[in-house]
Amino acid sequence: MSYDFMSVQQRYIEQIEAALEGAIGSEEETLYGVVQEAMRYSTLGGGKRLRGMLCLELCRLGCGEYERAVPFAAAIEMIHAYSLIHDDLPCMDNDELRRGKPSCHVRFGEANALLAGDALLTRAFEYALRECDYAAMGYERGVRGALTLAQCAGLDGMIGGQAIDLRFENTRQMTPEVLGTLHALKTGALIRAACLMGGIAGGMDEGQLELCEKYAAQIGLAFQIMDDILDVTATSEELGKPVGSDRSSGKTTYVVLYGVEESRKMAQECVQEAKKCLHDLHIEEPFLYDVAEMVISRTH
Amino acid sequence: MSYDFMSVQQRYIEQIEAALEGAIGSEEETLYGVVQEAMRYSTLGGGKRLRGMLCLELCRLGCGEYERAVPFAAAIEMIHAYSLIHDDLPCMDNDELRRGKPSCHVRFGEANALLAGDALLTRAFEYALRECDYAAMGYERGVRGALTLAQCAGLDGMIGGQAIDLRFENTRQMTPEVLGTLHALKTGALIRAACLMGGIAGGMDEGQLELCEKYAAQIGLAFQIMDDILDVTATSEELGKPVGSDRSSGKTTYVVLYGVEESRKMAQECVQEAKKCLHDLHIEEPFLYDVAEMVISRTH
Repeated sequence: MSYDFMSVQQRYIEQIEAALEGAIGSEEETLYGVVQEAMRYSTLGGGKRLRGMLCLELCRLGCGEYERAVPFAAAIEMIHAYSLIHDDLPCMDNDELRRGKPSCHVRFGEANALLAGDALLTRAFEYALRECDYAAMGYERGVRGALTLAQCAGLDGMIGGQAIDLRFENTRQMTPEVLGTLHALKTGALIRAACLMGGIAGGMDEGQLELCEKYAAQIGLAFQIMDDILDVTATSEELGKPVGSDRSSGKTTYVVLYGVEESRKMAQECVQEAKKCLHDLHIEEPFLYDVAEMVISRTH
Repeated sequence: MSYDFMSVQQRYIEQIEAALEGAIGSEEETLYGVVQEAMRYSTLGGGKRLRGMLCLELCRLGCGEYERAVPFAAAIEMIHAYSLIHDDLPCMDNDELRRGKPSCHVRFGEANALLAGDALLTRAFEYALRECDYAAMGYERGVRGALTLAQCAGLDGMIGGQAIDLRFENTRQMTPEVLGTLHALKTGALIRAACLMGGIAGGMDEGQLELCEKYAAQIGLAFQIMDDILDVTATSEELGKPVGSDRSSGKTTYVVLYGVEESRKMAQECVQEAKKCLHDLHIEEPFLYDVAEMVISRTH
């Protein structure tokens, strides 16, 4: 059978969605069902699942099967979903739209959104630790996978990025160095977690894991630069949220620092570097090369 | 040397504080230092460390040394600290005082408090998974400890309790059954985690762990009933927060349902049940009996 990017992507997305369904559970008649509903609302049936796909494919390239990384992939997507819920809250970005729908706090109220975020973050670790295929990968790698997730999602990872974002809000004083750190943490850390956890589950050695991390860093940067570009070039319908919000909020972005054309060039260079990592990993199959291209060709 | 409750307590508190210092780190010159400062402010140098002490002592009773449970004890205290930060937020209880100091969001702003809570929750898992003494207890128990924490802290544990609290806010329609469920989750789940994780780290068998869990349930209920009583009988100075806030907010409490005297009797019965569990565990040393007494004799 010939390779088709869309159908590989589709299969991975289905696996991730099914795992997320199981991880969050169906709406039960509990006294706290509304928080579970908010978790489902913000996690299921949407999103590109970029992080989950990276995790599954790198596991498959490591050991021949993607299945053992499914709990990790679902955990990463839960962390991603929680971060968006908390980011959208009035005290943070105060965004009322997410993926074309009212954001979680608009739909369920602030308190339920706060708890849904907390519950997704906690469930991510519960699910990764409970469903991990220890028989296949061994306890040591299972623990390392969950630990990597905690490190990348925490204060020295994603949350650190959000904190930097907050600190420089409305200041227009962000240097290129700070912007680089911000994005390496805020967007990059979770993509790094995805690639590393896939490699860990797939039994990769330290040298290979290092290349996974480098690939992730380039993809992450390209992804963020494209976000900045799309904020000024896409339509609100394409994005599912208001465009131009970066400029109106006085945010420093790649576009503000370098302009659209130069930014686009930088994103393309990241993709070239990412592909070089794949070469060094002796990967010949096209999927991860195509993922790298997808990151900069996307329109939303 | 003769037994002295205060000095055992003091030693445990020192161990837990030292571990928390290490887990959160000193204020570094990072771009996100303010969130780290908020984490320190809300976690260190205060609190009764009831959960951490239970964890350490049950580990010691299981295997003869408390040291291997220290990472678990610190993780539980970080989860406890995060839950208070998020609980105090304006969209939740909107409490401006905590332990006699301005609450986290009053001191650092809502966004930093939100992130400090998220970071403590994440750091709890990072620390437990990284510092766990796998050599002493084995990977399987290490994983089980962290998984127990996630289960007890999550939607089917502490967060579920917070969600129930929220749902019945101002309704005055809470039945005794719902109130029981609320407290078993909101306060009880984390105390259950503490006792179970101590037993797990200490190598206890399933029968012993079941008794740990029963002891925890009784202690947890007694603790919560005392909270309800203190809200009407203590002074604001003793509590370090406003008294009578339950009544003014229309909360259903044990005192509202049963009155002060009957509630006190119920708390005492819980303590008797808790002591029975200790007898069944063949524990002769006095510390955990004294902890049970402390829970209902406390004035704050």
